[in-house]
Amino acid sequence: MKIVKETNNDFLKNLNMKLQECIESIPLNTANAMRYSLSAGGKRVRPLLVRASCLDCGMKDNSFWEPAIAVELFHTASLIHDDLPPIDDSSTRRGKPSCHVKYGQDLAILAGDGLILKSFEVLSKSQLESDSLIRLFKVFSNAVYKVLLGEAMDVEALPHMNAKQIAQVYKYKTGALFSFCLSVGPIMISNMKLFEKTIKLGETIGIWFQLLDDLKDATLTEKETGKTVGRDSLLNRPTLLKILGLERAQLLADNLYRAVIKALKRERMINSANIIEELGKVGV
Amino acid sequence: MKIVKETNNDFLKNLNMKLQECIESIPLNTANAMRYSLSAGGKRVRPLLVRASCLDCGMKDNSFWEPAIAVELFHTASLIHDDLPPIDDSSTRRGKPSCHVKYGQDLAILAGDGLILKSFEVLSKSQLESDSLIRLFKVFSNAVYKVLLGEAMDVEALPHMNAKQIAQVYKYKTGALFSFCLSVGPIMISNMKLFEKTIKLGETIGIWFQLLDDLKDATLTEKETGKTVGRDSLLNRPTLLKILGLERAQLLADNLYRAVIKALKRERMINSANIIEELGKVGV
Repeated sequence: MKIVKETNNDFLKNLNMKLQECIESIPLNTANAMRYSLSAGGKRVRPLLVRASCLDCGMKDNSFWEPAIAVELFHTASLIHDDLPPIDDSSTRRGKPSCHVKYGQDLAILAGDGLILKSFEVLSKSQLESDSLIRLFKVFSNAVYKVLLGEAMDVEALPHMNAKQIAQVYKYKTGALFSFCLSVGPIMISNMKLFEKTIKLGETIGIWFQLLDDLKDATLTEKETGKTVGRDSLLNRPTLLKILGLERAQLLADNLYRAVIKALKRERMINSANIIEELGKVGV
Repeated sequence: MKIVKETNNDFLKNLNMKLQECIESIPLNTANAMRYSLSAGGKRVRPLLVRASCLDCGMKDNSFWEPAIAVELFHTASLIHDDLPPIDDSSTRRGKPSCHVKYGQDLAILAGDGLILKSFEVLSKSQLESDSLIRLFKVFSNAVYKVLLGEAMDVEALPHMNAKQIAQVYKYKTGALFSFCLSVGPIMISNMKLFEKTIKLGETIGIWFQLLDDLKDATLTEKETGKTVGRDSLLNRPTLLKILGLERAQLLADNLYRAVIKALKRERMINSANIIEELGKVGV
């Protein structure tokens, strides 16, 4: 929460409320599991970026809500499934017991599925002009499928990957969702040139973000990160950090960060640049 | 395959090919796992119904393909996740080893997620007029979320459910997807009155279909069904069969079947009625 400026606080408060409310009040532990994982917090950087992108494109209405909620629902779902024992086997997430530790693996699988499906349902209810909604649907569907492929590449830990190939994994696993977030504004104002640029920029942000995550996983404690650490090493996952070493990885992260900020400012996406700058200050 | 008439054979051959082709040729076992589960066959009753519904509404083009493929992708995904050891722990599906038996639990979780996401991606590529595509997106999102809730109700096996409540679970778990299938034609021709009727009819088909599944689970062998049997009893799941007993359950199934056929014929949905009649002849 520290990463956001005062002006974003109202948005975050509303977001947290809307995330809870979008799961039906039904007597099902699976619904409780969904709400539990959504309530665990996190920095909400993806919804913040969706809103920033819309502000940067001059949108003055509330049409950012559905894509902002959808992206966080999907992201939370992917964390629940990643944490499962057959995949990452992480027992802590966002400083709390992981979903499967609290609710069991059966309900964690179902809760993850539920949040994925809910993300599309929320998006489908966007009050947008038809063409924007269809484009949003297309770009979101494509992005989340890429996230899944990136996660699969990571889990299968294909041996002998070089730096370029690992960067490709990061683009998919982490970048695709950032591309979606940044592109929401351009989609809504039908600025296809800016749309293309934000898709590329999102990929770069993904590599940078994942690189910071590598650095954190290798150097911080569980208490500092709020999640199980040292997993990359334990699971023998290929990371850019392992290939580049600490110093070069840090240098690459810095360069990517500067390139992203510069490009965002050049496109006058100042709100989006601010979110990334705040992230850069406190780390991922 | 026995259930379909000669006229549907070309469709099924094309469908199986398209289902394989829609998963990218990438060197990932997760992609292989997706294709494996898609190739296991099954009766493809849902895609057949989508096509039948479109034919019944006088559609002459190929716009049924995307919803037909999407519904089978999602259905296959839900089977993969249901079969996982923490949920149903079924080691056989459609006469072959379940996805997790063949590829491991980690890849089965990812393959299920992948097929869910791919179902939306395929749907988003439908070449339809904007309003139809948006309605299809809304109805599909809503249906698949209901399937998930129904599955959760089933897995959590809420105790002391009466027949009406269990029927509600069946409506969600099985009916929601049939509702989607039957409603594709009415959506495409913007016949909202028929749309409402097909949604209700799909729910009834779901109860009937699930009732036949209960009967099969209790009375047939693994070889006859192609999947692990006796799970309902073993998992202590509430079923209509348990509450009603064999004779009354069979009677209810017969009554529902007759009501559905009559209603479909009244609406002149002859192709759809044919699919259900074929299903009725050979059992689920």
